[in-house]
Parts: sequence; structure tokens; C-alpha cells
Amino acid sequence: MGPTSPQDLYLPPRTALGPLLSLGTSPGTPPLGLLPLLVPTSPPEAPPCPGSHVRVSPCAVELQSPLFAPGDAMLPWRVSRWAMQLSLQVACPPGALVAGKSGAGARSPSMLVPWPPSLRGSSSLPTGAPEVALTAERYPVQRLPFSEVTEEDLAAFEHMLPGRVITDPEVLAAVNVDWLRSVRGCSRVLLRPRTTEEVSRILRHCHQRNLAVSPQGGNTGMVGGSVPVFDEIILSTALMNRILSFHDVSGTLVCQAGCVLEQLGRHVEERGFIMPLDLGAKGSCHIGGNVATNAGGLRFLRYGSLRGTVLGLEVVLADGSVLSGLSSLRKDNTGYDLKQLFIGSEGTLGVVTAVSIACVPRPQAVNVAFLGLMPGHAGCPGFQEVLQTFRFCKAQLGEILSAFEFLDAECMQLVGRHLGLSCPVRGSPFYVLVETAGSSVAHDSEKLTAFLEQALSSGLLTDGTVATEQRRVQALWALRERITEALSRDGYVYKYDLSLPLEQLYHLVPDLRARLGPRARHVVGYGHLGDGNLHLNVTAEAYSAELCAALEPYVYEWTAARRGSVSAEHGLGFRKKDVIGYSKPPAALELMRQLKGLLDPKGILNPYKTLPTRA
Amino acid sequence: MGPTSPQDLYLPPRTALGPLLSLGTSPGTPPLGLLPLLVPTSPPEAPPCPGSHVRVSPCAVELQSPLFAPGDAMLPWRVSRWAMQLSLQVACPPGALVAGKSGAGARSPSMLVPWPPSLRGSSSLPTGAPEVALTAERYPVQRLPFSEVTEEDLAAFEHMLPGRVITDPEVLAAVNVDWLRSVRGCSRVLLRPRTTEEVSRILRHCHQRNLAVSPQGGNTGMVGGSVPVFDEIILSTALMNRILSFHDVSGTLVCQAGCVLEQLGRHVEERGFIMPLDLGAKGSCHIGGNVATNAGGLRFLRYGSLRGTVLGLEVVLADGSVLSGLSSLRKDNTGYDLKQLFIGSEGTLGVVTAVSIACVPRPQAVNVAFLGLMPGHAGCPGFQEVLQTFRFCKAQLGEILSAFEFLDAECMQLVGRHLGLSCPVRGSPFYVLVETAGSSVAHDSEKLTAFLEQALSSGLLTDGTVATEQRRVQALWALRERITEALSRDGYVYKYDLSLPLEQLYHLVPDLRARLGPRARHVVGYGHLGDGNLHLNVTAEAYSAELCAALEPYVYEWTAARRGSVSAEHGLGFRKKDVIGYSKPPAALELMRQLKGLLDPKGILNPYKTLPTRA
Repeated sequence: MGPTSPQDLYLPPRTALGPLLSLGTSPGTPPLGLLPLLVPTSPPEAPPCPGSHVRVSPCAVELQSPLFAPGDAMLPWRVSRWAMQLSLQVACPPGALVAGKSGAGARSPSMLVPWPPSLRGSSSLPTGAPEVALTAERYPVQRLPFSEVTEEDLAAFEHMLPGRVITDPEVLAAVNVDWLRSVRGCSRVLLRPRTTEEVSRILRHCHQRNLAVSPQGGNTGMVGGSVPVFDEIILSTALMNRILSFHDVSGTLVCQAGCVLEQLGRHVEERGFIMPLDLGAKGSCHIGGNVATNAGGLRFLRYGSLRGTVLGLEVVLADGSVLSGLSSLRKDNTGYDLKQLFIGSEGTLGVVTAVSIACVPRPQAVNVAFLGLMPGHAGCPGFQEVLQTFRFCKAQLGEILSAFEFLDAECMQLVGRHLGLSCPVRGSPFYVLVETAGSSVAHDSEKLTAFLEQALSSGLLTDGTVATEQRRVQALWALRERITEALSRDGYVYKYDLSLPLEQLYHLVPDLRARLGPRARHVVGYGHLGDGNLHLNVTAEAYSAELCAALEPYVYEWTAARRGSVSAEHGLGFRKKDVIGYSKPPAALELMRQLKGLLDPKGILNPYKTLPTRA
Repeated sequence: MGPTSPQDLYLPPRTALGPLLSLGTSPGTPPLGLLPLLVPTSPPEAPPCPGSHVRVSPCAVELQSPLFAPGDAMLPWRVSRWAMQLSLQVACPPGALVAGKSGAGARSPSMLVPWPPSLRGSSSLPTGAPEVALTAERYPVQRLPFSEVTEEDLAAFEHMLPGRVITDPEVLAAVNVDWLRSVRGCSRVLLRPRTTEEVSRILRHCHQRNLAVSPQGGNTGMVGGSVPVFDEIILSTALMNRILSFHDVSGTLVCQAGCVLEQLGRHVEERGFIMPLDLGAKGSCHIGGNVATNAGGLRFLRYGSLRGTVLGLEVVLADGSVLSGLSSLRKDNTGYDLKQLFIGSEGTLGVVTAVSIACVPRPQAVNVAFLGLMPGHAGCPGFQEVLQTFRFCKAQLGEILSAFEFLDAECMQLVGRHLGLSCPVRGSPFYVLVETAGSSVAHDSEKLTAFLEQALSSGLLTDGTVATEQRRVQALWALRERITEALSRDGYVYKYDLSLPLEQLYHLVPDLRARLGPRARHVVGYGHLGDGNLHLNVTAEAYSAELCAALEPYVYEWTAARRGSVSAEHGLGFRKKDVIGYSKPPAALELMRQLKGLLDPKGILNPYKTLPTRA
């Protein structure tokens, strides 16, 4: 497998672009244009791949490369574990772009870099790339009677945010569409406040004028929650990226909402801590967005939900009033815990402007075991063995277990076929990735060995491999993390993110295979087994209404019958808001509507999202 | 120290009384009376102490013993770590009372035991015990214009709950007063539903009739939140004590709200798990009350807040409608997380009727180190050493650190003087109790040794002792857990439960010593250092308005100036509701009032609690 073969290339379009993204935050100079880049491959020692391009916009980075077909919508982004080892070499006019820490002109946190005028207005999409259909045309949704933005509004905004009121159509094109290219709004203005006070003034104005607002963080959401549906004003947190404080005994971090998760991770790692959450999108997602969507991710099993680790929030309400609650206290039982209202409310109840979060001590040792499970016989052949392995794992690894991920044989085939990754273990119906993170290399290794011996002697495993060295650890994680990417290369992907009872976590997959037959190319299941979270994906040659009708509402009904959740960690956003009823009873929905009515009586905050359209 | 000396006796009035308490739950036969008991001492092998009495009522157990002076209000109850080893021998008419599992007539969960009529109506309080002043007489509070309970209301309730509508004045006397004997209501009826449907019918009726309701769990609260202020109907969860399910892979427990925490602990421990929370009051507190007050306690440092570990709730709203959300899923991002509204709302927004909670695997090894700190010099002499020890602890013990408690020298003196407990370490300004809980005896011991060597070689410690054997572990915990008891024997106690920044966690104590001078007998500080939670206590010969005025609002202002919380884990209830403003801004208070108005527009749920009286 040569390092320059397309399948072997590792292209981090949504990660490791810190220096470029910070260009996007230059006040007054909306950066745009098609920049020639040398994008390194992974493994890092592979030669750079010339001819790739990256499109930089204030809120999104899109990669264009001869290695990807135009319109290849599912760019590989769940790859951030590699991100720290990558760097970008940028070829562009001197003084214009600065890559890396040593570049001249780098001013943290808001760089002021003169943008080369020659690049402005250049073509942004590759020739032939299909434009994303407008949400209003693709989905049955009616615009609500909000006001439209006038010249007077723009002038008022410009007065509040000099140079940070963006109306350039090309910038707007990028922030109107989600990264999955599944929804597209037609907002005519992007606002980029730097302070809570500015957000407050913006919302006060919008509330008075009945202007709808779509708050946007890193625009990495999976359900179309972070872009406008119609012409809502886009309120970006990209320039709200200051770390306000870090306490090196308690591990409490306080920062603005627009801080990028990965950058926060680096900041606290230098001080002996890690963030309590980790996502594939960490290279571009904002902590405010993480909180607003109650992001789950890879550390959930070990460190739990943001509902426990977020200590305080500062939120601007729909009318512009500021709810200050940036507590750094672990315990505070004075009255109702208002911050919980905003965690997971997807920007529909208020705009999170700053976050106080409890970081956790950095583990001293990390081990990864990648294991093949015996086929077994009962039910879903091999899945009982996965569950039994999980039981042993919890018992033997105890407090050092930090991840228990699983994938089925079809996932593994796709990762091999489309990405050229080879699996160190073969011939099993299921594979599991077990990670330990602890404070002692020797102890953790002993615990892991004891677990493996028990699992092997119990006849649960066909084979397995263990890695402790960072590169090997990353290579094993790639088998799990790059499944999304492999799927996107397999065709059109129908994606479901379900919580189900552990015993039945996988049963829907063979059920769907039988139901769909040859209409589906692949039906695969993988995910965070330790959290009871299945990522169910169905691929087909192209989108088909017939296949969709075979999947929905069947998948939702199947999930509801088992009291599962139709959105475990992705939220509802725009695309899933109408399936909430499969997981929540009418009384709960009614109370949610009342809360929305209480906090945002005019409904200007992220309209058409989270709560279903009334019949 | 002879085992029969008063100081050495361990009397568990609010723990280990399961069989007796279950008598209190006999339908139709409100048990009452002064029962002759043989109460064993602690350590368990000590001879029983004849002449003690226990008063059994549906919701409270009061102990009378010649070993306590009449009116000794602060009975020792934070002692549940011992509770499992104790048993009660009950001397009473045959067939009337059954103690222990083997007794004939024991029917779980609701025993039907014929109550000896000769005991009904006998004197319940020891001669000379001062009656608790009515809240309405002691505090400036006005009754709101709720309806009064009529004969028709009682008939309606009796129709809903045959035999479980209690109007016996003696039963009511017990449930109208809090265990601290600080507040007393004058409710004329106690309702004891068994099901959510019954709670729903009760609240529907009360809502229609504008009758106020005071929900009551184990009545173990610290701030007068669990008893009526005036004549509110007491709605007890004591009969709602069924475990609904337990999942032995995921560790998810689903149970009714009236389950006693300690009993839940036993249930899950037999299955390889522990509850994610532990409190001194676990022998009588209800899980519903724990959730309603967002209880913190001893496992908070390790397993975090109930906001992360509670997976689902069933709640009855003020109008009687039922909000069903007993999810067992770890992840569910479908809409707003409504359960968070009720966690910590102290029964003012709804009545929790059932709980789904994530239990954690039972540790295989537990170690406790009790350490004396060097005096040091800067600031509060010795406190810097406490903080440095905590830093080392987190680094060396990592994932196995399960408690880091501290107490000052005056606490230790009081524990010795009033309880006769001897400290294994002497002469230090501060003591810390470090607990580890992990999955390997050998590994945990090695980690603990490494930590102790580092702390010793860094000159932080004067001396220390380590226990791994259960009895020794318990004896060391007693030094920390019985401080409350020791304080109560020292005189009148002014109690504060504060969250503060770690660096300044203790500074208020010497500050107050200087401020109060000889007016205070003792000013002591102890608590959950790992959570930044200080229990500040001031003792004096008797209550004095002058001393109170020297303490309040000074303590609250001091805390507010450091952005601390004036109630870290105890909540606000009735007694602290008016100090909320020291920790929450007016905008937050206003939103809390709006939420209360939305969920309970008539204000019938636990009125006069949590939210301050409007000026």
C-alpha cells in the first residue's frame, strides 16, 4: 500500500486548520478565496500531495482535492486524533497567510492579517460541484412572519460591530450551508460579535424588530441545526474565542463560547488536564456549540455528560438580557439550575456566550486493544460475545476503562475497501476497541492483560492486538473513527443515531438487512457500546424515496418500541425535529413548547429547529 | 474508655430501623407509642443499653434514652456507615412488633402488623423536652391565601387512599417538625400514596381546590424544606418504596421515589454495583428527596452530580398531570432535558414519583488514609499544605481517589471531648481523610504508598495512618462523619454550608474567630475539600440574636464577595430561601420565578420554600 495511493491519503479538512481558521476571524477582512495548499498525508512522513486546495471561510473549511470527486459530500472529518501531528504548509503571497505559531503577524486571539485582495471573490466551488438545494425548496417548511433585514438594520448592526457585519455573498454562501451539505439557508447577513455585550445588543435589536436569528458555532452539527432555514441572521461565535481563566488545581476552565474544542484541549493539556469531552469534530467545533447541543462523543463513557461537567454558563436571552452564571463551583444548590435549560437546547432558548467547565486530570497511560469476537450462535451471531466482553471489561478494567467501541464486519470491509486500512484482526462478525486511560503504565497494563486473559480463556475472542505506543494507538482508533468516511465513499448514506437497550443494540441491523434486501448496498452498525449508542448507517447508490420510505418511520418505530432514543447525541436540529414524538410523550412536548414560549415568546431564536412543526 | 460510658455509645436513631420503620408504613394502622427497646451500642460487640426508647412514627424515628439529656436536639444520625452492622432487639407484646428478617408477620414492602392498642396515644415526647416553636411564630412569614382542608377534602382523599389519610395528631406532630427541630408546621393531614396515579389524583384535587402541599421524603433535610410552614397537606413518599427494575450490565436502577437510599445501596451492591451517591442520612433519606434536593454527599468527588447520574424521572406536576420520563438511556438528545428542572427544585415544581439512576461498579478495594498536616506559615497556617496534599493526591491517585475530606484541629478536639473518639494523629492544624476506591487491592495500595511517600518527602505531613480493613476504615471515617454530632453536644450551633474557591476555602474560619471573639465557643471548618465545599459551624452556649447578627449577613457577604455559593449541597428550603440573592443575580431569580409560575401557577407546591419572599 503506497503512501501516495488515494485510499491511503489522510486529509484533515476540518481539523488542524487553526492558523487558517484564525484568518477567518480577522476583523473587518472576511477571508475568502481558493488557496493553493500543500496538504500533508497521514502517516505524517508521507510526501505532501500537491494540487489540493482548501477553502477558508469564517465558519467552515472545505477541502478540494483531485483525490476527491467533486460533490463528495462526506468529507473525512472524524479524524482529529491525528490532528495534532499534522501541519499545513501554505503557499500564498508573503504576509498574507501565516501557518504555525512562528509566523509573523500572528496575533492571538484575534489575528489581523491583510488579506490578499486578488484572492477575494475568486471561485469557491469546484466546477461541476452540485449546489445544495435550498432547505425551503427541499423540505416542506413555511417561513414564519419574521421581519426582513433592512438597510437600517444593517446600519444598526454596523454601529454595534464595526467591520464585523458580513454581507458578502460568497462568505454567506459558506455559512448558509451545513458541512453535510444537506440543508441550505439564504441568510443575507452574518454577524460576528466579540463580546457578550455585543451579542446582547444584537439580540435586543432583533427582538424589538422581530428578526429571526440562527446562532452558529463551528457548524459541525449533524442535523442541520447550525445554519438558517430561510433568511435568519447568522450570529457566529467565531470571534468569541478567548480563554478567560484556568484553575490548575481544580481544573476549572472558563472561556468564551467560540473557543475551538481542540484548542481548549491543548491549553489544558499543557497544564496537566484534558477536556471532559472529545469529538471527531474537535478541530472546528466550538465549546458553545458543544454545550448548546449537549455533545456526547468519545469520553462520555468515562467522564459522563456535559450536564455534570459544565459548571456554569453565561447566556444571552432572546430579548437581549444577559443571564450571568459563570460559576466555577462544583456544588451550588441555590435555586433552580438554570444552565441546564440551555445545555442541549440547540440555541432555541438562548445564546451561550461563555462556559465554565470542569476539566479532568490528564491520564498518564493510554492503552488500546482491538479485538475480534467469536461468531457465537444465539440471536445476532457474535453480539452476545460483545456484551459478555463488555461485562468482563467493566469488571476487570474498572476505573481505567475509557472507551468501549464496537463495529461490525461490514464496517471493517468498507474501511478496508474505501480507505485501504488493513485490520489487524480478521474473520470476526464484530470487533471491539477497548481503551484504558489511567495514572500508572504498569498497573493499567496488568489490568488489561488480566481482562484479555479472561476474555480469551472464556472463548470470547478470535484474535486481538494491543497498542500502547501513540502511533499504533492512533492506527487502531482509525479503524473505528474513519468508518464515517468509508461510508461516505460507498454511496448515498442514510444515517441514524440511536440509543437502545444494550441487549438489543444491534438487532435492528440484521433486521434491516432482511427488510431492505438488495435495495441497500450496505447496512452497518457501530458506535459507543458503552453508552448504548448505535450509529446505524445504510448506503445505496443514490438517494431514493422508495428506500427512504422503507427506512422511515420503520427505524423510528422500532426504536420507540424498545423505549430507545431517536437521537442519542446528535440532537434534533432541523432535520430530526419532527421525529421527537418517537422518544418523548405529548406532555413532555407540551412543556417544551411552554418553555420555549416563556424564554423566547417571539420565537426568534433558531426557529424551525428542535421542536416539531405544529400540525 | 469503657463501652458503656455515655460518650462512647453509638445510638443510631435514624438508621438501621428498617423493620420498625416499615411498621410505620402499615396501611390503616398509624403506629404510635413509646416502645421499650434494647438499643445496642457501637462497637457492635458492646452490651445493649437497657432503658432506651424509640419513638416510631410514619416518617421519623426519635430516640429517647437515659444516656441523652431531654431536649438534646441534635441526635447522632450521620453515622450510617455503621448501620449495616447494627440490629435492634425490640421488647413488646408478642405478635405486635417484628424485628429482623426472620420475624413472623413480616411482609415486605408494606407490613401489616396489628398495633397494640394499649400503646396508642401514649406520651410521645420525654417530659421536659421543649416543644419546637411553630415556624409561623418564630419567623416573619405570612400564610398565603390557600384553601383550608375541609371534611369533604378528607373524604375525597380517603376515597383515593383508603386507610392512608392520617389525621392522628400524634402522627402529625412527628411529620410537622424537621429532624433538626428548627421549624414546625401545623398540617392537619398526612397522605401516604403508593402509586404515581394516586399522587396524580391527590394533586389534581389540591390544584382544583387551591390546597397547598408539602412533599416529604425521609425528612432528613437541613434547611426546613421537607415540613409544612403552615397547614400544607403533607404528601409522604414513604409507601412508594418499590424497586421497579435493575439492569445488571448497565447498572441502571429504576425505583419509586420513596425507596430509602441505604436499601437501594444494598440491593445494587448484591449485584456488583454501588449507588452513585452516599450520604450520612442514607438510612432514612428517600431517593426522591435526594433527587429533589440534588443531594451531594460523599461520592460527589468521584461520581459527580445527580445531574449526570440521574437518567430519567417520573414527575407529577402541580395540576396532577404526569410527566413520564423514566428513561434508562445514558444518552438522549431529543428536545429539552425536562428532568433537570426537577432535580434540585425541592418539590416546588413537581413531585418526583420515580427515578432512573445509573449505578457504578462496586470497587474491589477501599483504602483510607488519615493524615496530619504540617503547620506551615503563610495565610492560614497549614492550609496551603492541605491544598498541596490535594494536588499530589489527584496526581498520584488519579482515577482511584474517591474522597478528600478535611477537618481542622478544633473539630478534632470536639470529636474527642464530646464523643471520646481518639485521633490516631495529633498536633496538626489540619487533618485530611483520603479514600481510594478501585478495582485492584495491590495497585491501589501501591498508588497510595507512592502518594504518601511524595507527601512525606515534601514535608507536608506530620503523621498519618492507613486502613484497609473495614472496621478500621469505618473508625477513621467516624472522625470526619461524627463532627456534626460532636458540634451538637457543644451547644447551640450556627451552621453554614458554603462553596468557595479552593484557595480561600478555609479563610473565613480564622476571620470569624477574630470577629466573634469570646462570643463564640468554637468556630470550626471541615468538609468536602475535593468539591470546594466548606461546612462552617459556630457553637455558643445558647442562641443569641447578637451573635446571629455578627454572623449574618457577614458570612453571606464574605461568600458572595468570592463568588461562592451560600448553599453548596443543602439547598435553600425554608430557612435559606431569602439568602439566594448572595449567589444568584436578579435576572436568574426572575427567571426562576417565571419557571415556578409556568409549572405551578397557583403556587401550591411546597410554598414558602426555595424562592425568596417578594419584598
